[in-house]
Amino acid sequence: MLGSYRVRTDLALEARERFTEEHVEVRGVEVCEDYNEEKDIRTTVVKICTENGAKAMGRPQGNYITIEAPHLSIPDEDYHREVSEEVAHHLRQLVDLKNEKSILVVGLGNQAITADSLGPHVVENLKMTRHIIREYGLKGLGEEHMHRTSGIIPGVMAQTGMETSEIVEGIVSETKPDVVIAIDALAARSVKRLNRTIQITDTGIHPGSGVGNHRNGLTEENLQVKVIGIGVPTVVDAATIVHDSMAHLLDTLDEAEQKEFLEEMISPHLHSMFVTPKDVDETVKYLSFTISEGLNLAFSRVDEG
Amino acid sequence: MLGSYRVRTDLALEARERFTEEHVEVRGVEVCEDYNEEKDIRTTVVKICTENGAKAMGRPQGNYITIEAPHLSIPDEDYHREVSEEVAHHLRQLVDLKNEKSILVVGLGNQAITADSLGPHVVENLKMTRHIIREYGLKGLGEEHMHRTSGIIPGVMAQTGMETSEIVEGIVSETKPDVVIAIDALAARSVKRLNRTIQITDTGIHPGSGVGNHRNGLTEENLQVKVIGIGVPTVVDAATIVHDSMAHLLDTLDEAEQKEFLEEMISPHLHSMFVTPKDVDETVKYLSFTISEGLNLAFSRVDEG
Amino acid sequence: MLGSYRVRTDLALEARERFTEEHVEVRGVEVCEDYNEEKDIRTTVVKICTENGAKAMGRPQGNYITIEAPHLSIPDEDYHREVSEEVAHHLRQLVDLKNEKSILVVGLGNQAITADSLGPHVVENLKMTRHIIREYGLKGLGEEHMHRTSGIIPGVMAQTGMETSEIVEGIVSETKPDVVIAIDALAARSVKRLNRTIQITDTGIHPGSGVGNHRNGLTEENLQVKVIGIGVPTVVDAATIVHDSMAHLLDTLDEAEQKEFLEEMISPHLHSMFVTPKDVDETVKYLSFTISEGLNLAFSRVDEG
Amino acid sequence: MLGSYRVRTDLALEARERFTEEHVEVRGVEVCEDYNEEKDIRTTVVKICTENGAKAMGRPQGNYITIEAPHLSIPDEDYHREVSEEVAHHLRQLVDLKNEKSILVVGLGNQAITADSLGPHVVENLKMTRHIIREYGLKGLGEEHMHRTSGIIPGVMAQTGMETSEIVEGIVSETKPDVVIAIDALAARSVKRLNRTIQITDTGIHPGSGVGNHRNGLTEENLQVKVIGIGVPTVVDAATIVHDSMAHLLDTLDEAEQKEFLEEMISPHLHSMFVTPKDVDETVKYLSFTISEGLNLAFSRVDEG
Repeated sequence: MLGSYRVRTDLALEARERFTEEHVEVRGVEVCEDYNEEKDIRTTVVKICTENGAKAMGRPQGNYITIEAPHLSIPDEDYHREVSEEVAHHLRQLVDLKNEKSILVVGLGNQAITADSLGPHVVENLKMTRHIIREYGLKGLGEEHMHRTSGIIPGVMAQTGMETSEIVEGIVSETKPDVVIAIDALAARSVKRLNRTIQITDTGIHPGSGVGNHRNGLTEENLQVKVIGIGVPTVVDAATIVHDSMAHLLDTLDEAEQKEFLEEMISPHLHSMFVTPKDVDETVKYLSFTISEGLNLAFSRVDEG
Repeated sequence: MLGSYRVRTDLALEARERFTEEHVEVRGVEVCEDYNEEKDIRTTVVKICTENGAKAMGRPQGNYITIEAPHLSIPDEDYHREVSEEVAHHLRQLVDLKNEKSILVVGLGNQAITADSLGPHVVENLKMTRHIIREYGLKGLGEEHMHRTSGIIPGVMAQTGMETSEIVEGIVSETKPDVVIAIDALAARSVKRLNRTIQITDTGIHPGSGVGNHRNGLTEENLQVKVIGIGVPTVVDAATIVHDSMAHLLDTLDEAEQKEFLEEMISPHLHSMFVTPKDVDETVKYLSFTISEGLNLAFSRVDEG
Repeated sequence: MLGSYRVRTDLALEARERFTEEHVEVRGVEVCEDYNEEKDIRTTVVKICTENGAKAMGRPQGNYITIEAPHLSIPDEDYHREVSEEVAHHLRQLVDLKNEKSILVVGLGNQAITADSLGPHVVENLKMTRHIIREYGLKGLGEEHMHRTSGIIPGVMAQTGMETSEIVEGIVSETKPDVVIAIDALAARSVKRLNRTIQITDTGIHPGSGVGNHRNGLTEENLQVKVIGIGVPTVVDAATIVHDSMAHLLDTLDEAEQKEFLEEMISPHLHSMFVTPKDVDETVKYLSFTISEGLNLAFSRVDEG
Repeated sequence: MLGSYRVRTDLALEARERFTEEHVEVRGVEVCEDYNEEKDIRTTVVKICTENGAKAMGRPQGNYITIEAPHLSIPDEDYHREVSEEVAHHLRQLVDLKNEKSILVVGLGNQAITADSLGPHVVENLKMTRHIIREYGLKGLGEEHMHRTSGIIPGVMAQTGMETSEIVEGIVSETKPDVVIAIDALAARSVKRLNRTIQITDTGIHPGSGVGNHRNGLTEENLQVKVIGIGVPTVVDAATIVHDSMAHLLDTLDEAEQKEFLEEMISPHLHSMFVTPKDVDETVKYLSFTISEGLNLAFSRVDEG
């Protein structure tokens, strides 16, 4: 909105909240919230069911699960375990794990930029089994049924000279997984969500999202297999901070006045800047560990039909 | 400065600008600016000469040299060389290098936080000679006269359980250098200075400055040897961004109203956040290399009297 | 040879030397050596021309260029530049760069094991142009003709659950490069070659070679495009050291006696060990920089027909 | 000891074994071995009680505890916990922890060389309390009695231009700890001990020991406080491997013949090489974590008198 000062968010929850603030009900969008007081974990499922809902929300039809866990950036093993289990639970809802599946996990983002290194870290922590099963069969792992996991850290375009989607499409057509899980660091609108929110969606990863602003998306449409996107907001665009701080000042202006006001106000230097907590280096490590544990849990056993 | 929303800057240049904006001349403060158009490097020397000037500027008496080099975050070797030479030139003005000196370089900050890792990186890139001269004499290095350089990366209090000043005082009293050079990442007020400004001062490092907010300072008073501080702003406090964007709105309010207004406006979540450019990981590497080259140049020869 | 104590080497030069020591001329193998005294760089071209030669040498028909540069592990920029140029020169002999080519560079090996991280480091240092040309055309780079470079760090099987060859095949069939350059850390037979020898071959990468013992190879046969392999020996198997030290003792024994003798002598603990110089972490950085500069030089211009 | 081919070991246990092999009893040396079969941890205490014993063993009088834990390089959390407890148990024997003590942990070695980075990693994992107690008192930590822990990673001479002992002496005289714990990576004689043996001694760290060959030692004599040394062998000198493989061949020769034989046999290139397991990067991480947990356990409570 607001011309070039469109407030950017990769979180469906934040897109939804905009409407809540404005006391608008959105047709074609179902919201279901659950708060586990004991564990202090809040889970919101936003289901965009119609074309109309998709248009209103500015994102494709599908399920968007948001896990809000305020202590996610603190090194508390028991709490992180709870969150890993919550992640595993929702993955099992979105992916049919009743039969043995082959799962490719893609760690998006740039390892050399701390705030963008979540995806690569998650893949580093994952237990891969596909090569062991191919070599020794299930007996090699002492199991009767098992999912085959594989993973790739494709790098970003400036590092590889290739679109991430080209790399992933090539690997998918060669190794033929049943489902792709793509992990990415996201941009949020509000600093209060940074590093404490996990979004899981069955709509994949869409163009222009993520900290590093990937050009192409990873979706069922271009990969021809189901794509689950898992994201954590690790940054807020610096301009957004200024915008939001001035939000109620702006309420009294019409759209043209708002635009003029903000153009004057927001320094052009701000536009390549982002806001991040001081301890982002450490936090990204915890978070990626928690998510990879969630994946390890989800894929460690074949659900019984 | 607006109660608890005091705008924080570690740069004397920015403190000075405040007065310029307000068209006030500050007694006891001399300013001398030089712009090399060909090289596109601007150097400002702020000299605080009196107690009165120190009070007005909010920092101790002494010399504050600011080198503004807009292309400092771009990998252009020739440009970085020019900046290294500018750094070396000013170091030779502040430190008497006519006789052989023993120089201890201290890399302040937290290596595990990218924006705070400038000091450690500078020390990593430095050529150390003290141990070679002690072992083999100057002949070992094929020189007649030479400065002895040594360096330490003391870590931060949460990592060591000790004040940085305790560690440095201990090493200084044991190894007795003639001068200490302390390198630190700083907080600026304006995003336009991030990673393109180098401040050199003969007043040392003062309590509460730096990205990591060190508790104690490193000054001639507590170390009993001359202390040169070299800093580069790598972050802006997130709250400052909001404050500055609203600056001219605030002009119409009195101080109490301003305070009330800002307290409402600035989210408490913002206070552990900072603003940093997306490529800070890479930029800090270039910058630390340029500064360590400046030190290597300055200390590579004994100036002839 | 010697049963399970077969001395392992990934260098054609060392395979050739075995015959030299034994004063045997090998049919179907041509050797051409050139020593540049001024630069202190020795280049040996081993050309395996027949099936017979391939059998005798234990490696496929093709060209094997070995650059021996004794100062390669020392940080001397001028010397490294000479070696980069030598690498570029031989690449231009093996790959037809007269027309614009699309080149995919593959950095084999495990980034988490220093001695195996050469390939990944080379790709990190490369200038990628493919995505820029695709987006802006050649004008975007201010050139009339230009090669398109891209690169991938595929990881190793334990990290990805996939054969490296599956990943590379997928990317090759998606992005259709004209040539693949695969970089790998090798095992040598002799410690005196460690980190000072570069082997370039047009036969690709073969199964079971490399520090990490990749299972499948990367060859023209399985990728359907030309594959150049570039390798640097960074380790020697620990058992080889013992074997070679005892070589002339063994000369007096027949093969069965040798086998028995060695089985007794070489501790089973040795077999997961390798020998590496103490400064391998630093050396691998220099080496990878020199090789990536060689590639950057080779691909920076389109040779005129 | 074969002239210049003196077999080097930093482990008292290995020095002792030499005598065992030669069926010699050493006067002034007491040995006490304990094997916990269930846990598969063997602990040997070598006590050098007299000047004569010290001479025979080639190391100073004092206690040398060696914990041999074969699974130490495998990621088994329960097993590592057992080893951490064993480390804590022996530390409590060597250091009087009945009253509140101030403990400085020194992480020796070079972070940039994997095999030498054990000490720095241990300090990184330690819980520091000294600064919290100084700032808030014991109530700040919710305890009645507590030890004050601090730690330093001094770097190596080539990085700092200073002897490690100068840095540590300075910090000790400034912060006055009651005891210094110095952690170091060691060289072993036998590959079978690599990364599975922990040596704890109350004689400190002696000149010329360690992977990086520190020049000066850290002992009670030069620091004026008790010094505990904790070491793990992470490398074997490459020449030692060859020597030991040929040991029984050598038995038939007299000392002069042995020397001549070995001088011929051992390549001069071997002397800057070491033998290390392929997974040393990962193993050093596990090990350092286990040792730091041992220290955390030992210092987490004040023993009741």
